[in-house]
Amino acid sequence: MPELRCDPVTGNWVVIATERARRPESYVRQKEESKSENTVCPFCYGNEALTPPEVMAYREPDTGPNTSNWQIRVVPNKYPAFAPGAACPPLPAASGLTSPFCRSMGAVGFHEVIIHSPSHEKSLALLPEEQVVLIVRAYKDRYLALKKDGQIKYILIIVNHGKSAGASLAHPHSQLFALPLLPKMPQEELLRCARHHQNKGSCMFCEIIEEEKKQVARLITESEHFFAFCPYASRSPFETWILPKRHNASFETITTAEERDLAKILRLTLRAFYKSLGDPPYNLYLHTAPPSAEDFSQSYHWHIELFPKITLQAGFEMGTGIMINVVKPEEAAGFLRGFKDRED
Amino acid sequence: MPELRCDPVTGNWVVIATERARRPESYVRQKEESKSENTVCPFCYGNEALTPPEVMAYREPDTGPNTSNWQIRVVPNKYPAFAPGAACPPLPAASGLTSPFCRSMGAVGFHEVIIHSPSHEKSLALLPEEQVVLIVRAYKDRYLALKKDGQIKYILIIVNHGKSAGASLAHPHSQLFALPLLPKMPQEELLRCARHHQNKGSCMFCEIIEEEKKQVARLITESEHFFAFCPYASRSPFETWILPKRHNASFETITTAEERDLAKILRLTLRAFYKSLGDPPYNLYLHTAPPSAEDFSQSYHWHIELFPKITLQAGFEMGTGIMINVVKPEEAAGFLRGFKDRED
Repeated sequence: MPELRCDPVTGNWVVIATERARRPESYVRQKEESKSENTVCPFCYGNEALTPPEVMAYREPDTGPNTSNWQIRVVPNKYPAFAPGAACPPLPAASGLTSPFCRSMGAVGFHEVIIHSPSHEKSLALLPEEQVVLIVRAYKDRYLALKKDGQIKYILIIVNHGKSAGASLAHPHSQLFALPLLPKMPQEELLRCARHHQNKGSCMFCEIIEEEKKQVARLITESEHFFAFCPYASRSPFETWILPKRHNASFETITTAEERDLAKILRLTLRAFYKSLGDPPYNLYLHTAPPSAEDFSQSYHWHIELFPKITLQAGFEMGTGIMINVVKPEEAAGFLRGFKDRED
Repeated sequence: MPELRCDPVTGNWVVIATERARRPESYVRQKEESKSENTVCPFCYGNEALTPPEVMAYREPDTGPNTSNWQIRVVPNKYPAFAPGAACPPLPAASGLTSPFCRSMGAVGFHEVIIHSPSHEKSLALLPEEQVVLIVRAYKDRYLALKKDGQIKYILIIVNHGKSAGASLAHPHSQLFALPLLPKMPQEELLRCARHHQNKGSCMFCEIIEEEKKQVARLITESEHFFAFCPYASRSPFETWILPKRHNASFETITTAEERDLAKILRLTLRAFYKSLGDPPYNLYLHTAPPSAEDFSQSYHWHIELFPKITLQAGFEMGTGIMINVVKPEEAAGFLRGFKDRED
C-alpha cells in the first residue's frame, strides 16, 4: 500500500509510492554533460565586460571593478526576470483592455548572479571550504544591501546545478531574486508557522529538529550550528533540508561563526550528493523571513531546501500539487549518511 | 520591464519575462525520441496478459476479457500510486514512532491506465476523431464507475505525452487517479470560485470565456460546445485551457453531443501543438468538481489544462511557486491560431 504523508510546514501531501520503489543505489548516475564548451564564458576571468557592470565583488586590493583577480563577483542578470523600476504601478493588460481577470504589475525588483569563484569547473561540492564561506558571505551582503529597498517584499537565493536543473550557464553561480511581492510558497510556510506558534507557543522548525533527533532515521549529518536531514514528507528522492539549530527567522542575521559552519555543512551535504549519487543536477533555495520580519521573528526559522533533480513532475503532480516520491526518506537519508567524505 | 500577472482562478502570480523572450517559432522542435523499442509493449494486442486484468474495455462482441480485438482497454496501473484498501486508517510513522509532525495515511484509491487504441504509434493528435470520442467516453464511464466509492474524494484524469513529460511507456495512454483526499490544486480553484460566486453571483470561468471572446488575443479555436485559449497568466509557453461553453461543474455529466465535440476540439488543439511545435511532449489534466459536488455546482466549471513541456521548473519556481514564462500568451495563441489543419 502506498503511503500519503503530510508535510507539517506546508500542509502539502506527498505519496510515498513504495510499490514502484527502487533502491537508492539505482539513482547513481553518470555525469549528464561535459563542462567543456566552445562558447566564451561571461563568468570567467578576462570576460568581465560580457556581463552587466558588477554590483559587488570580493577582489584583490589594487584591482578596479569589472577587471579580473576577484574571488567572488556579483552582477545583474543579463536577462532579468525582475528589474529595477521607479515604482510598481499596475500595467494595462497586454491587449490594452482592462478587466478584473487581467491583473498585472511591473516585475520590479532585482535579479542578480553571484559567481561562485573564478573556476569554470568547480561546483560547490568541489570548491575549497574557504571559498564556500565567501559565497555564504556574499549571500548575506547582498541580502542586507537589497533589503533596504522599501519596494522589496521578499528575497530568494537559489542555485540551479546542472543543465537539466535549469542552469543555462555552466560556470557555477547562484541567483538572487528581490521581489515586489511575498510569493505563495514562503507565504504559506510563514502563515502556517505563525499559526503553530499562536497555538503552541513554539517554533515548528525547532520542534521538528527535536523530533528528527529523536527518530534518527532521516538524519544525514549535523555540525556545530546546523542539522541536515531528509524531511518526513520529502517531495522527491533525496530531498534535503539544512536547518540552523539556533532559532532564527532571518538568514541575514547569522553570525560569522554560523557563516563558516553553514559553508561547511552545505559543502558536506553537496559532497554526499556528488559522491553518493554521481553529481546529480539539483536545485537549492533558501527560505527566510521577509525583510520586514518583526511579525515572524518568533514563529519562523530560516533554512535551505535541496532537491536532486532525479524524477520529474508530470500531469498528476501538476494537476494536484501532490508529488509522488519513489524513495522513502528514511532510505534516502541512510544512503546519504553512508557517504564517507575524503578530500580527493 | 518584465510583467507580473495574476491568475484569477488560482490567485497565483506568473512572471512574463519579456526580456528573455524568444519568438514562438524558436520552440519548434525535432521529435525527442524514436518510438521503436525492443521491449515488448504490454499495451499492444497479444500482450494483454502482461497487464493486471482489465477493469473495462470496448471490444468486439464475441471476444472475452483480456484478449485482443478491443478498441479501448482500461487496466489498473501495475505500479499504482493509489491502491484499493479496506479502509483509510492513519499509518504509523515509518520509524514506528508517532509524532504530530509525522501525519500519514494509506494511499487508498485507484490508479488506472486507459489505453487509447491498439496503435502503439498514434498519439491523440494522430488518431481518427472517432477513436478520440471513444477515449472521452471511457473517461466518463470510468469516472462514473469510480465516483460511487464512498472513500473517493477526487478523481483526476491525465495524459503524459512524451518521455520528458513523464510517459514511461510509449504506447499512448491516459491515467486516472481516484484519491482519498481533495488535493490542494483543485481545492484552491474550487474555493476561489466559490468565493467569487458568493461575491458576484456568477461563475468565474463563464466570465473568463466572455472576457476572452471580447479580447480575442488569446483565443486559439472554438467549436460548438468548447473554447480553447491561452490563459492570461499562462505558466508556461503555449499553456492552453479547453473550457465547455455551457456552465457545468462536473465533467461526468457531459452530454453525448459534448463528448463528440470535446473529442473534436481536443484533437484539433493537439494537432496544432503537433504541427506548429513539432510534436512537443506535453502534460494534460482534467479539473472537475469532486464526486459529491452539490456545493460547487453553481460556482465551479470543469475544464482541461494543457502544458507543452518546453521549459523547466528550477530553483526560483520551486522556491516561490511563481512560474517564469518567456512567451507572452497573446503571442503563443497567435502562433497556434496560425495553424491550418490538414488531414494528412
